[in-house]
Amino acid sequence: IKLSAVSGAMIGKGEHRHFMLKEIYEQPQVIGDTLNAFVQATTGHITLPDLPFDLAAIPRVTVVACGTAFYAGMVAKYWLEQIARVPVELDIASEFRYREAPMPEGGLALFISQSGETLDTLEALRYAKRQKQHILSVINVAESTISRESDAVLSTLAGPEIGVASTKAFTTQLTVLACFAIAVARARGTITREQEAEMSTALREVPARAVDVLNHDERLRQLAHDVSEARDALYLGRGTSYPIALEGALKLKEISYIHAEGYAAGEMKHGPIALIDENVPIIALAPNDVLFEKTASNIMEAAARGGKVLLLSDAKGVERMGSKVTWTVTLPEVHAFVAPILYAIPMQLLAYHTAVIKGTDVDQPRNLAKSVTVE
Amino acid sequence: IKLSAVSGAMIGKGEHRHFMLKEIYEQPQVIGDTLNAFVQATTGHITLPDLPFDLAAIPRVTVVACGTAFYAGMVAKYWLEQIARVPVELDIASEFRYREAPMPEGGLALFISQSGETLDTLEALRYAKRQKQHILSVINVAESTISRESDAVLSTLAGPEIGVASTKAFTTQLTVLACFAIAVARARGTITREQEAEMSTALREVPARAVDVLNHDERLRQLAHDVSEARDALYLGRGTSYPIALEGALKLKEISYIHAEGYAAGEMKHGPIALIDENVPIIALAPNDVLFEKTASNIMEAAARGGKVLLLSDAKGVERMGSKVTWTVTLPEVHAFVAPILYAIPMQLLAYHTAVIKGTDVDQPRNLAKSVTVE
Repeated sequence: IKLSAVSGAMIGKGEHRHFMLKEIYEQPQVIGDTLNAFVQATTGHITLPDLPFDLAAIPRVTVVACGTAFYAGMVAKYWLEQIARVPVELDIASEFRYREAPMPEGGLALFISQSGETLDTLEALRYAKRQKQHILSVINVAESTISRESDAVLSTLAGPEIGVASTKAFTTQLTVLACFAIAVARARGTITREQEAEMSTALREVPARAVDVLNHDERLRQLAHDVSEARDALYLGRGTSYPIALEGALKLKEISYIHAEGYAAGEMKHGPIALIDENVPIIALAPNDVLFEKTASNIMEAAARGGKVLLLSDAKGVERMGSKVTWTVTLPEVHAFVAPILYAIPMQLLAYHTAVIKGTDVDQPRNLAKSVTVE
Repeated sequence: IKLSAVSGAMIGKGEHRHFMLKEIYEQPQVIGDTLNAFVQATTGHITLPDLPFDLAAIPRVTVVACGTAFYAGMVAKYWLEQIARVPVELDIASEFRYREAPMPEGGLALFISQSGETLDTLEALRYAKRQKQHILSVINVAESTISRESDAVLSTLAGPEIGVASTKAFTTQLTVLACFAIAVARARGTITREQEAEMSTALREVPARAVDVLNHDERLRQLAHDVSEARDALYLGRGTSYPIALEGALKLKEISYIHAEGYAAGEMKHGPIALIDENVPIIALAPNDVLFEKTASNIMEAAARGGKVLLLSDAKGVERMGSKVTWTVTLPEVHAFVAPILYAIPMQLLAYHTAVIKGTDVDQPRNLAKSVTVE
């Protein structure tokens, strides 16, 4: 039940200065490739490979990963709980493997790893196997240890990812997990045929919307000049924008060495708001969804305390809040379900251009390895 | 089923320069007061107030809180899962209240709040009530909205906490949650009488050990001179030391405005290690427990990259790793179960002295309120 990764992604940098930028630009293509493997072209029906367990019978899903893949898992938790109404446990692999977590009989354990060799994730998988869980993995490198030790694999068709900071692997992980959430919801009868069709349509529009987002590259490159002067930054979001804020902060940290931290917007007043002054830019992810008002109120608090806010929203959100913040980027208006996939892309571009301005080694940042095969 | 808070805590600052320092020093007393309410003096038996639900029958515990109380809940997740083998869902209140999480029939929802008025936590409670969960709260202010709307309350007997940065409320929350974990484990038959006695003994020694920890005040005050020169800091830990690392970072951030961030030690190489240079001190919490070797290897990686590490451990841990790091603080050797309660105290003292050196308003840090009654 393993799909082979066949992708048009090239190994060379092509016209791009860095692998990372090339990989960012490949996203419309590889998200499309990945969708083609899971969405029937004519009907829009989501189809997973045959799985050796019944999605309708799963009492709980345990999602375990490291780093960027962990944030993909965090988005999946929101999706699976909201759409498929199945409880999801989420943990960092290096914590999960040692803490002797109780796991329910017949549970599903889901592991996410670009390389399929992440040691902590592999050891967490082995723990889950001993607890008699069904093992499902979302992996980019088909021939990998985690793939081999899983009961089933959902492949991201991102092609080879060379830049140490993950970009296309992350958005294709999200793409696969979105399809998986829909499949689980259908199996459990928690969505109607119409809802499935609506989400499937939104997903199939992601490659085209990703092209729209990439058109903001020049704007983000300009903003990177402001960000590059900061030593610290805060990234804020609510709902599925919260893990994307965490991922945005991680990206900036990894390649520009600016100390960026992601926070649930509602937690800001429980501590990090004390950090805010004009030297700590705030990157706020706020699509104009049901949580917009709440995030907007947190943005106002930050701005009232002298914080310079970069608002990423759609036209409606920018219309509502644009005059209250320092900078805006107007992203396409999309279905709330797919917003995290698209909002991940400006996070990558902002980090990339900031790192280039700072003159760091973008594809090989200091102290980091592409695949973490030690503890 | 509500206990009244009766405490010897004074309202004035007494001999102390700040309420925060007074409250740090009250911890042996108020932890002792809290233990007296839950542990039978003669037998060491843990007794909770009568609860209107059966602890043995709970399918899952959902723990929800904000800020420092959230980190207390995170420690409780480790304890409850490891000792009582009950699955625990943990979430930030501002996220939980909006994300429509599925909750199991007959589940227990546990809310933690010093003031009992934290708005997001209160609204999360109301959501859980609509989902027909049993509602249990850990609250310091007995006459509060969250107390009134709960089915049962476990009171922390910390007395009034004036400093905005929570200290004694946090360690008494941990104390109550430790008693609760033991009670759930006994009800579910997952610990032996001997194990209960051992943990109860360890708990009853906490006030005396807390006095020992406070004796390191002068050492921590000296170290604060080094920390006060940093603009950024990383706090690392594994297992129950991970939430204490998060809490330590929050404390420093709140009152000294240094951008401190807590991380699971095993996640460091998935990103934050890129930040490390001689200007970013690393505060490593590593009691000499089963996870020590693993944390030690992460400390070595940080040190190898030029990071200056402050190791907090016991004599055995300092003997093993002391020569590899820049600074050490040797804490008393304690049972792993109670280590998070005691390791929280040097986090408070380090943040306090750093803030005093930086000349910030320790008891009323900028932008922060004691009780967050808005969203």
